[in-house]
Amino acid sequence: MTDLISRVAAGDTRALARALTLAENRDGALLAALDLAARPSPWRIGVTGPPGAGKSTLVSALVRQLRDQGAARLAVVAVDPSSPYSGGALLGDRLRMAEHTLDPGVYVRSMAARGHFGGLAAGCEDVCDLLALAGHDPVIVETVGVGQSEVEVAGVADTTLVVLTPSAGDSVQALKAGIMEVADVIAINKADRPGADRLEEDIKEGLDLRPHPAPGAAHWRPPIVRTVATQGQGIAELGQALAAHVAHLRGHNLLGAMASRRALARLDSLALEAIGAALKGDGALAQRFAALRARVAAGQATPRAAVAELLAGLDK
Amino acid sequence: MTDLISRVAAGDTRALARALTLAENRDGALLAALDLAARPSPWRIGVTGPPGAGKSTLVSALVRQLRDQGAARLAVVAVDPSSPYSGGALLGDRLRMAEHTLDPGVYVRSMAARGHFGGLAAGCEDVCDLLALAGHDPVIVETVGVGQSEVEVAGVADTTLVVLTPSAGDSVQALKAGIMEVADVIAINKADRPGADRLEEDIKEGLDLRPHPAPGAAHWRPPIVRTVATQGQGIAELGQALAAHVAHLRGHNLLGAMASRRALARLDSLALEAIGAALKGDGALAQRFAALRARVAAGQATPRAAVAELLAGLDK
Repeated sequence: MTDLISRVAAGDTRALARALTLAENRDGALLAALDLAARPSPWRIGVTGPPGAGKSTLVSALVRQLRDQGAARLAVVAVDPSSPYSGGALLGDRLRMAEHTLDPGVYVRSMAARGHFGGLAAGCEDVCDLLALAGHDPVIVETVGVGQSEVEVAGVADTTLVVLTPSAGDSVQALKAGIMEVADVIAINKADRPGADRLEEDIKEGLDLRPHPAPGAAHWRPPIVRTVATQGQGIAELGQALAAHVAHLRGHNLLGAMASRRALARLDSLALEAIGAALKGDGALAQRFAALRARVAAGQATPRAAVAELLAGLDK
Repeated sequence: MTDLISRVAAGDTRALARALTLAENRDGALLAALDLAARPSPWRIGVTGPPGAGKSTLVSALVRQLRDQGAARLAVVAVDPSSPYSGGALLGDRLRMAEHTLDPGVYVRSMAARGHFGGLAAGCEDVCDLLALAGHDPVIVETVGVGQSEVEVAGVADTTLVVLTPSAGDSVQALKAGIMEVADVIAINKADRPGADRLEEDIKEGLDLRPHPAPGAAHWRPPIVRTVATQGQGIAELGQALAAHVAHLRGHNLLGAMASRRALARLDSLALEAIGAALKGDGALAQRFAALRARVAAGQATPRAAVAELLAGLDK
């Protein structure tokens, strides 16, 4: 495995593909080897927004733009946390990204499954780490905006791009709450449709409701960029707005703090994943849990009473 | 709290409303009191299917039908696990159920949030228990069919009703895998639209792929019922098909086994919920975890290494 990781770091794309699959399957040996590898910290861009906002087309155009802005190798991870199925929409995403298949500087990976413990697919962080190790910078994580995923994507990103459209009018109300708090840059895509002015006003109102930064803290007001991704309109401005945000983070030494916050969030989810596995494993914890399960199955204890007993043993 | 639970059991609807809110907020005292109460086991019907299948209209018609079939009090829990927001679609559901607001025998409750540890909203099981305690039988759990929720709803139900429509043609392929395995009764709603015959053929093919029951095991082949919920067509047949399924379960003494399986699933999710809370609480476990978090935040340990250390302490 250490050898596989070395080949990934040396830019071997077949090794990368194999390592990514192992990471998605939560292969213990691979993940342990990855944990020991040097960890580059590429710029991570999260992209979210409601279904139908044209995110995939926009990301595809943005890939070209970021290449033009100087990215030698970049990667796109397309996550659909609401779908347990591969294919379908994801296949569609891949087709829309097809223009980049001949560009060796662009790597695209789709992930379908939601993590067992909530949040984005459990392997998403490791997939990003592997792509970073292989020299990709930036790494773009695009998620289908269903439910909480728009907030979750912000947890893995340095810069969060929220994509909205005039046509999704009535959903803006609902989106305001969560999305306005996580957005670093906002794109109004399909801006040639009626309603773009009204949407921009709504967004500005939403931004005004964001909590004020503490005195002395670095302040960033998310710029709003109008785009028509299918025609390439506004893409250069969007690429520059994103670059301005990461320059802001670097200028205020905020990237380290964000990486540290991300590491803590990852610790939390890994801890639950590992404890869940240990409960069903073959160690001492699993044996105690199996005894409790037998009593619950026999109706001798309620699930809640059994959990209280389990906790009494652990929390001391 | 014991007093509140007694009032719920006595049929006090204001006490029920308050207890349901406490359960959704995961109030420890309420949940402990509920755990000690007698647990009636009403018939639980799970309803799932893709968005746009007309589930809410169908459930509303079905409520009338089940009342006619003799249910003195019944409850509907509408769960949208993909949405962190209340209002919107849920408000729409409530409006469609409005015809029952004057019927004291029907209780409707909406739940929005997804559980932190995956699965349906964490409080869903407790909400069902409270509704059962208040004398509702059956308890219907309706979920928006996004991603894995169709499989999850089967985990809380005795009888799982899957609602499909001819218009959702291309999604049937994707649905086959998960949905065909959990369906006990299948409704083809909006059956007056073109494509109903084709859909029924597809469903039958999907059912043929289900694993054969073990020799001697009780066999149930899901009936397919065509409905037009907006016009009340097929609703009586659907009500009878559902009743036939629960009669089948009772006739083969399967309800107990299902309750036991459900209790085990609940034990698993409660255990993770409780351990997650203990990690952030104020006990010994939380102190050890806080020390690990500090090392991760300072870059002295990777999240994975910290988790390995945590596990080494627990799993012995």
